[in-house]
Amino acid sequence: MAFVNENYCNLKESFLFADIAHKVSAYAEAHPDKKIIRLGIGDVTLPLAKCVVDAMAKAVAEMGVQSTFRGYGPEQGYDFLHAALVKYYASFGVTLESDEIFISDGAKSDCANITDIFSNANTILIPDPVYPVYLDTNIMCGRHIIYMEGKPENDFLPMPDENVKADVIYLCSPNNPTGSAYTKEQLEEWVAYALKNDAVILYDAAYEAYVTDPAIPRSIFVIEDAKKCAIELCSLSKTAGFTGTRCGYTVVPHALVRKTESGKEMELNKMWLRRQTTKFNGVPYIIQRGAEAVFSEEGIKQCRESIAYYQENARIIMEGFDKVGIKYYGGVHSPYIWLQCPDGMSSWEFFDFLLEKLQVVGTPGAGFGKMGEGFFRLTAFGSRENTIEAMERIINGLKK
Amino acid sequence: MAFVNENYCNLKESFLFADIAHKVSAYAEAHPDKKIIRLGIGDVTLPLAKCVVDAMAKAVAEMGVQSTFRGYGPEQGYDFLHAALVKYYASFGVTLESDEIFISDGAKSDCANITDIFSNANTILIPDPVYPVYLDTNIMCGRHIIYMEGKPENDFLPMPDENVKADVIYLCSPNNPTGSAYTKEQLEEWVAYALKNDAVILYDAAYEAYVTDPAIPRSIFVIEDAKKCAIELCSLSKTAGFTGTRCGYTVVPHALVRKTESGKEMELNKMWLRRQTTKFNGVPYIIQRGAEAVFSEEGIKQCRESIAYYQENARIIMEGFDKVGIKYYGGVHSPYIWLQCPDGMSSWEFFDFLLEKLQVVGTPGAGFGKMGEGFFRLTAFGSRENTIEAMERIINGLKK
Repeated sequence: MAFVNENYCNLKESFLFADIAHKVSAYAEAHPDKKIIRLGIGDVTLPLAKCVVDAMAKAVAEMGVQSTFRGYGPEQGYDFLHAALVKYYASFGVTLESDEIFISDGAKSDCANITDIFSNANTILIPDPVYPVYLDTNIMCGRHIIYMEGKPENDFLPMPDENVKADVIYLCSPNNPTGSAYTKEQLEEWVAYALKNDAVILYDAAYEAYVTDPAIPRSIFVIEDAKKCAIELCSLSKTAGFTGTRCGYTVVPHALVRKTESGKEMELNKMWLRRQTTKFNGVPYIIQRGAEAVFSEEGIKQCRESIAYYQENARIIMEGFDKVGIKYYGGVHSPYIWLQCPDGMSSWEFFDFLLEKLQVVGTPGAGFGKMGEGFFRLTAFGSRENTIEAMERIINGLKK
Repeated sequence: MAFVNENYCNLKESFLFADIAHKVSAYAEAHPDKKIIRLGIGDVTLPLAKCVVDAMAKAVAEMGVQSTFRGYGPEQGYDFLHAALVKYYASFGVTLESDEIFISDGAKSDCANITDIFSNANTILIPDPVYPVYLDTNIMCGRHIIYMEGKPENDFLPMPDENVKADVIYLCSPNNPTGSAYTKEQLEEWVAYALKNDAVILYDAAYEAYVTDPAIPRSIFVIEDAKKCAIELCSLSKTAGFTGTRCGYTVVPHALVRKTESGKEMELNKMWLRRQTTKFNGVPYIIQRGAEAVFSEEGIKQCRESIAYYQENARIIMEGFDKVGIKYYGGVHSPYIWLQCPDGMSSWEFFDFLLEKLQVVGTPGAGFGKMGEGFFRLTAFGSRENTIEAMERIINGLKK
């Protein structure tokens, strides 16, 4: 008799975005005359950069001609993309070997699949509030999960606690959903904790391209010895608008070595290579050519223009909240603005207020964990016009 | 202390293709004047069909324009591709619901990742010889694996044995590496076994497009009640030359229900949906548009032309072996010809003979499992000219 995975029974159904969609559509139906502005979306809206489109168009044409057609590629990605990423990392001071970089279809897949190479006996440390994938993928393999609290007192940047023993630690900086970003000194503390405890940090750098201050690390590998205790996951989704184009990369340094429970020493880079060559067949050649263009001089320039557009939206949102005295986090090194709901409202009360009184849609912080209760996420991915109008409505609405 | 997955120590390093590459390059270096013909490759060589290239070029252009840009898509794939597949399946008599089909980046990923939704306590039944992914992915999660023997006596099509209790069963038909294909009657026996034992069949149909006889099933779901005991994995790699373009699909019927060890009844379709929405972010929009074109009337016609080209190569190979009295399997419903090495040679002896005497490269059967010893795989993916020349060399070489 085939048994199915019991751990799936422990997953909570997430109704967050379904509930939001339901409420918004019910409101829209009852009030067809009202213009609803959506600033809850965690997805980019600007098109791909021209040089990326050109590179993919060229690659598509190559696939139709026998002499340039490409079949199976290397599971870990083409050398041309590794080379582009080695150069990109060097631009912020990180030296990588080509074979420390694994091209993937996105950070979501990798931050979930990376669990494969770890023992199920590990204790997993996860921030709250959090991107739900870290939590659910570990529940699926029945692991012991503990939480660290993000809260106003620590600017939603939880720090290591020597009394807590964690084996695998998820960090996301700049953070989804709070937009907070660790400083170099804070990451040094995390690296010191991980080295002392032989822990491994899974560092999600999906929003690194939004970092505006050179003092804020764009990679955990700017920290000395981080290569001995960290895996970095990154994505082109927010860097280059690849949410529907799908490409990311994961860095597993050769220096990262841990033991099995029976004491066998393993290089995690080799384990991940084995995992990927066994369970994955690489990212489409066409997409890898697009990704290569992202990291070209012209590509970086074009992608920066889109990011600057979103950053100006974020600035407009922050300026609005400054005017009405609402406390917020993020927004500077992140497309996310994480705000404290006014007047002691709960996340969902504020959601209802924004929708019903002002016709603005955001995301209740409570959807990202219990520490998110009383907070709310707005994103900078709307159009300029809608962002300005939404903030005018909010400023006027909260003044009343 | 973070422990890594002990099961990885039980994986055998596969040197098959590395060993082949090493031997071939050493020979080529020592004999620069000799023309080596490679018929070992398991990868397509003809370019993508024109209508597929056109569809992807259009999709690439859409991604560069704000009004047609696509961000995150549904993890399980776009409705337009589901609709195309529902129609495709109907063409060989299988009725599917749209939400029974999950679009993926290929059958390799899915036949590996599908292990996630099963308990590690299951006994896994795997054919020998076999595509190594079935084996290695189950070793990675520490499962009990048993084998069923493919051999000349059963035409390399092992059948169920009532004395063997298996929970999860991998079947691949038409088979890689042997090219053998189960008849409808044989699959009915497998379905009866699975239903009787509450087992689940993981049916790899990656080569279904090579079936030439309507009496040979192209889907396990032509068998009555197979929806109660089977998951089907398929790929566009060999159907449409997508080995470097990456798209596949997995069918998990709603009727497939099994229990957890504690007795909770679960619909596997819902479990797989949860797995995919948690750990995967879908196939690139551009690629899905290409896949949609594969299943259009024009696309099917164009892809069939490439398959016909490979099938003619297979016919030439089989005709050659008929002339010299070499026994083989496959080749009819498959791009693979699985032959018995002549004169009692081992797989590697025959490899060396072909390389050194005739400058033809194939794949030693022993690389696919112990039952492959004494057998050898040639593929129909070479050019017509090379296939003809290789067979002339083999015919003349074996006559001597």
